[in-house]
Amino acid sequence: MTTPAENVATVVVSQKGAARARAGHPWIFRTDVASAPEGLPSGAEVRITDARTNFIARGFWAVKSPIALRVMSRNDSALDEELLASRIRRALDRRRTMMPGADAFRLLHGEADLMPGYFVDWYNGVVAVQHHAEWAEARREQLARILVELTGARAVMARDDGSARDFEGLPRRTQVLFGTAMSANYHEGAIELSVDLAADHKTGGYLDQVENHLRAGELAHGEALDAFCYHGGFSLQLARKATHVIALDQDTAAVQRTLQNAQRNGLSNLEARAANAVEALRAFDKEGRKFSTIVLDPPAFAKRKEGLEGALRAYREINYRAVRLLEPGGLLVTCSCSGKVTPELFGEVIGWAAQEAKRPLQLLERRGAGRDHPPLIGVPETEYLKAWFLLAP
Amino acid sequence: MTTPAENVATVVVSQKGAARARAGHPWIFRTDVASAPEGLPSGAEVRITDARTNFIARGFWAVKSPIALRVMSRNDSALDEELLASRIRRALDRRRTMMPGADAFRLLHGEADLMPGYFVDWYNGVVAVQHHAEWAEARREQLARILVELTGARAVMARDDGSARDFEGLPRRTQVLFGTAMSANYHEGAIELSVDLAADHKTGGYLDQVENHLRAGELAHGEALDAFCYHGGFSLQLARKATHVIALDQDTAAVQRTLQNAQRNGLSNLEARAANAVEALRAFDKEGRKFSTIVLDPPAFAKRKEGLEGALRAYREINYRAVRLLEPGGLLVTCSCSGKVTPELFGEVIGWAAQEAKRPLQLLERRGAGRDHPPLIGVPETEYLKAWFLLAP
Repeated sequence: MTTPAENVATVVVSQKGAARARAGHPWIFRTDVASAPEGLPSGAEVRITDARTNFIARGFWAVKSPIALRVMSRNDSALDEELLASRIRRALDRRRTMMPGADAFRLLHGEADLMPGYFVDWYNGVVAVQHHAEWAEARREQLARILVELTGARAVMARDDGSARDFEGLPRRTQVLFGTAMSANYHEGAIELSVDLAADHKTGGYLDQVENHLRAGELAHGEALDAFCYHGGFSLQLARKATHVIALDQDTAAVQRTLQNAQRNGLSNLEARAANAVEALRAFDKEGRKFSTIVLDPPAFAKRKEGLEGALRAYREINYRAVRLLEPGGLLVTCSCSGKVTPELFGEVIGWAAQEAKRPLQLLERRGAGRDHPPLIGVPETEYLKAWFLLAP
Repeated sequence: MTTPAENVATVVVSQKGAARARAGHPWIFRTDVASAPEGLPSGAEVRITDARTNFIARGFWAVKSPIALRVMSRNDSALDEELLASRIRRALDRRRTMMPGADAFRLLHGEADLMPGYFVDWYNGVVAVQHHAEWAEARREQLARILVELTGARAVMARDDGSARDFEGLPRRTQVLFGTAMSANYHEGAIELSVDLAADHKTGGYLDQVENHLRAGELAHGEALDAFCYHGGFSLQLARKATHVIALDQDTAAVQRTLQNAQRNGLSNLEARAANAVEALRAFDKEGRKFSTIVLDPPAFAKRKEGLEGALRAYREINYRAVRLLEPGGLLVTCSCSGKVTPELFGEVIGWAAQEAKRPLQLLERRGAGRDHPPLIGVPETEYLKAWFLLAP
């Protein structure tokens, strides 16, 4: 323990906030702040204590976010560049050990890697970052420099154009932090994909689904349907095993990219077209069509708590249709990336669909985001992706 | 739909039983039977109707079990050899497709494969079966014959010596149904194991853990500890990647088998010894020992609801110790095969251990039994195994 430097301010938190931080949660809400010095700047390092001046943790202060404090360390020592760099280095080392040979992965996953609100994706030489907290925003140039030093990246792109920034009171924006080349080719198993880091969804790809794409590819067979295909992450893996794949997306640009990606990989058994998945599933059902492999990976139907009921109705509808469309022996990969839809609620949706369709369903695997996107135990907010593998016996 | 044969008896069930069966649950308890003909023999095929004589399903009658009826089909057609054989064939086909190259797997998994209470394991040419329902018990010679015809197995062993038989009112026993050679060698990835089908736990191996053994092996590193090693399913996979493995088991015979299995596979970095895991974990903690990889795969601490509190205490204790023993970057694979410990309860145990040990923990994967042992959606009784992969960041 070093003695606290003179210039580190102290923020006092309520009993509730103290208990939460002591239990290991990295967020302290503004409603749990008892007192803080006037004019504390955005992203400032602070000492966090309870009302009796007992030290709890070091953290970073936010001015606008409802999350006033991000807890960084339970040691009373400086949150300096050495600490930040060592956390990035350790996160990178773990990915290299856990995912040998991968040329794209989430390098650092916010809370789970003890850097709350800071996310880093690696795409084969190019880095995409997201700053979902004021401390990271304030240090973005420094963090980018550390990343370049540790990885040798040729470019760093800040993809701060997502809705998570609204919650933090931060403006939406994309910004080049280093270099210029903002596209990359990377691999998901044997499939090569290209990514436009300035324009594609999220930071470019859906890296959280890579392991699920590959797993679906292993188990795919027969006539396959990917109802929300985006750039073909699932479709292309299915196409390697299935006899034929129908890939649907509402967005014609996404459909084009899926077709380009299929061509790049020499896959000619894939038919992609623009369509509303709910209507398409209903129409297939009416026609009596059957599929041996179906993937449902819809966009987040519920981003906010208020939308939950509507989202559950939509999940029930698409899953019910998909279960009806399954051949005996057929595989259903069904996903939800809505954090508000807990695994329990998602299980109820699947149970309802099976019951309503009068089809027994085996639960092969209850998967989530890849191991480079781990939730942090005790912090349910860090778990969002469900990807369940089901089989109709 | 064929017209029901004259000799199929009708059993009338309560509204509750009818609703449950219509929702897809394969069990109807005796308390939900409204009326049944006198003297209906054990295992008899029956038509199941509601009080208004509406057909619900065909099923099998049990005389002693609290589960009076096992629902087999919602079609009103005969539950004949053709149906039984086709279900076994389909289960086998799915395994062959899903697990190419595997020489051991659960060939048929009871409820999930629409053969409630009947379980079949394949060990490289030898079959081990379990009859946990009267219908299967009554048909065991017939079922064994079908299995031999479909698989060419050289032997079939009935491992009816488990506690599940007590619940069904069936005697515990082991019985050779076909052939004589009751041992086999099989593989879990690159590791060869031998199994004594007449004497080893369960049906011989823990096939439900095979995929988890392999996954643990992929991620293992450094100094490793397997606190409940049995025959070395986890330990041997760890030994391929870790620098050194300590394998513990209370049972000296299990320790011997682990050592033999290590020798058979040319693994010399494994040290196995007889020890009580709880005491050993406490002693390691006292000594300040650290491990980079820890596996906890204890026997079922809670087989009955009454033992749940004690079981949860035991799970908390071993998980707390293991979290304390983890190096930074260390991997913890923690399992529970107690059906009474739901995934939610198990999550609470892990959360408590992390909090108490003041260690953040990443949840890499929430795994369960292998895909050849799937739970059936809507039938929570068919889910028992949790195998969570955690990492200390």
